Amino acid sequence: MRPSDSSVNVFRGRQARLSAWLAESGIHACVIDDFEHHRASTLRWLSGHPMDALLFVFASGRTVLVPWDENMARDRSTVDQVIPYTEFKRSFREAVVAVLEAGGGEPAFDGQAARRKVEFPARTSHVRFQELTGDLPDTEIVVRSDGFETFVVRERTVKDAVELAAIERAAEITNSIIEKITALLAAPRGADGLREFDMAQLIEREALSLGAEGTGFETLAAGPLRSWAIHPFPACGGGPFAAPGLSILDFGVRVDGYTSDVTLTVARGKLTGEQERMIGLVEEAYAAAVKAAIRGAAARAPAEKADAVFSAAGQRMPHALGHGIGLDTHEAPLLRSQGEGTDTALLPGMVFTIEPGLYHPEHGGVRWENDLLVTESGGRVLTKARIIRIR
Amino acid sequence: MRPSDSSVNVFRGRQARLSAWLAESGIHACVIDDFEHHRASTLRWLSGHPMDALLFVFASGRTVLVPWDENMARDRSTVDQVIPYTEFKRSFREAVVAVLEAGGGEPAFDGQAARRKVEFPARTSHVRFQELTGDLPDTEIVVRSDGFETFVVRERTVKDAVELAAIERAAEITNSIIEKITALLAAPRGADGLREFDMAQLIEREALSLGAEGTGFETLAAGPLRSWAIHPFPACGGGPFAAPGLSILDFGVRVDGYTSDVTLTVARGKLTGEQERMIGLVEEAYAAAVKAAIRGAAARAPAEKADAVFSAAGQRMPHALGHGIGLDTHEAPLLRSQGEGTDTALLPGMVFTIEPGLYHPEHGGVRWENDLLVTESGGRVLTKARIIRIR
Repeated sequence: MRPSDSSVNVFRGRQARLSAWLAESGIHACVIDDFEHHRASTLRWLSGHPMDALLFVFASGRTVLVPWDENMARDRSTVDQVIPYTEFKRSFREAVVAVLEAGGGEPAFDGQAARRKVEFPARTSHVRFQELTGDLPDTEIVVRSDGFETFVVRERTVKDAVELAAIERAAEITNSIIEKITALLAAPRGADGLREFDMAQLIEREALSLGAEGTGFETLAAGPLRSWAIHPFPACGGGPFAAPGLSILDFGVRVDGYTSDVTLTVARGKLTGEQERMIGLVEEAYAAAVKAAIRGAAARAPAEKADAVFSAAGQRMPHALGHGIGLDTHEAPLLRSQGEGTDTALLPGMVFTIEPGLYHPEHGGVRWENDLLVTESGGRVLTKARIIRIR
Repeated sequence: MRPSDSSVNVFRGRQARLSAWLAESGIHACVIDDFEHHRASTLRWLSGHPMDALLFVFASGRTVLVPWDENMARDRSTVDQVIPYTEFKRSFREAVVAVLEAGGGEPAFDGQAARRKVEFPARTSHVRFQELTGDLPDTEIVVRSDGFETFVVRERTVKDAVELAAIERAAEITNSIIEKITALLAAPRGADGLREFDMAQLIEREALSLGAEGTGFETLAAGPLRSWAIHPFPACGGGPFAAPGLSILDFGVRVDGYTSDVTLTVARGKLTGEQERMIGLVEEAYAAAVKAAIRGAAARAPAEKADAVFSAAGQRMPHALGHGIGLDTHEAPLLRSQGEGTDTALLPGMVFTIEPGLYHPEHGGVRWENDLLVTESGGRVLTKARIIRIR
């Protein structure tokens, strides 16, 4: 399908804001690369093109896409110019030199007045930095941890109306799937003989049938034998699911690129005292964290509440409390009690997970995860995952 | 399961060969990091630990694993010491400084005699390089494109007996799945109403039922409406599969971490002249390439044969002819006619794909991919994918 007029405007708006930021920052252009070993969803956020391409954004406002799949680019992208990667023999260095030489349509650059600055992503390797410095002797190669990507991450943290519509639809589909799973487990003998991959396949079929692009990430399904792992490996196997004990099911569905992310714990049969205690603590931590996730609070506040519940019981959660969701399964803001970004204020339009969990090598794991949207008046939990008890 | 004695020996052997290389190269230690945004299967190849960890290999022979999931490491890894990442507040920089300070058990390092050299992966970012240089003022931070990873890549190119057993088992399971799909499509009305995700789910169920870890990568299933894309996006949707025209199904199954990688094309009904011509060329290119993929040939030789078939017909293949498979879906050797590595000689024990393809925006795509093992006496095609015609 060709991009619709409204989506063209969305992409043009995002490109224009980045171009303005580049101009203000004295940067001639920035280069975004997304390939197999380095996904950068900012490519899709800016251009609509989903993957496997270079994107050049000039301070002049001009945008050039160099895609691996030209047909895909003609179908999906909103940019000024598309040049197939094959024209540069699929060489990153050749493409960069040629496109930057052609420039952004601005008046001829006067190399004597000021050195041209071109910015590359912060994760650009030291080896590539040295290569580019050699290839472009008249250009200052800018690679820094607080550059154009920090601007883009900040822009992406607060979702616009188009993004919220996708996320809300993803949440609706997620909730339909949760209902279906709950009904399956509640039916007489419904949980008998279930295998981990039965759950993953049910989720994928339902997601696609309900119009999602698919699942948002590889579904993690861990029966009682493996739920002690934070991220079980493999993510989903042939072992029993919802057998007696604690099982964890962590999944998301993707709509227009935007994913949900929820975790159900299934507690079956008579539990051990330790398992009951873990469930009680996770429920308590979840409630305290959701209550604290309101407009204006610091990103660390909900995590501190959850940590306090656990540490009062002599327990410790081995992962962060939550993370932003969007085109990436994990994006800003990060909700944790320590580290960078914990002072970030929660703003209306931010969407993130709250997912306290505890894991025990013998008793298994418990995690409860939902997606929360910060609103003007507080916070709204979009998804309906919970800890499901069955006999 | 605890690592078995034989797998312990395999991992110890790999670690010892890398340590010896480090000692010869004057490198005190190397650091391998595998996290969500940077997978490095060398971590698993060296330690057995599948993901989300730092691995330190010292020239002295000592190995230290810093895992995100301590329970997983105790269960799976073969190393001298495990220190949970949480002990360093999940900070890469803190972990690196502390583990390098503790050292590899060698005699105390004499900073005056020679500066200690520690190597990090070639993709280490320029930003991180600068940080490490500041954190470790007495250490030379080595980051280069032709360092320890080149040694490891070369080691991994030729598979050992343990690896070949996994790959051959993956190929067997793949062939069972191909038979099942062929039978399904050949049955009266068997292809009617199939959707893309039906194929993906069939493959996943069969793979897990037959004892694979799962699929090797996201199955690409593209019906006639989308088979023009080299890698359709999304990889697998709700659209028709094996409807009249050309459909592509690209999948692999993973055994003990090692993946197969095959592509079937399903040609249904009366085809256009252009579609018949594309199929004929792909079949011809495939045969020419397989014939050329023998012991001692250069990696570019099979690709040149395929390219010649296409260019004689005024066509061009928009991707490489093939790639090594193993713990990574794409690894060395790369089979293409241009670029780095094309002089690599094909050696017994190398396993790679041969996958010529042509794509047309209206007529759809054709790709035929199998996995080939180079043997002492030539080459052996391990998998049985083909172009399937149905009415």
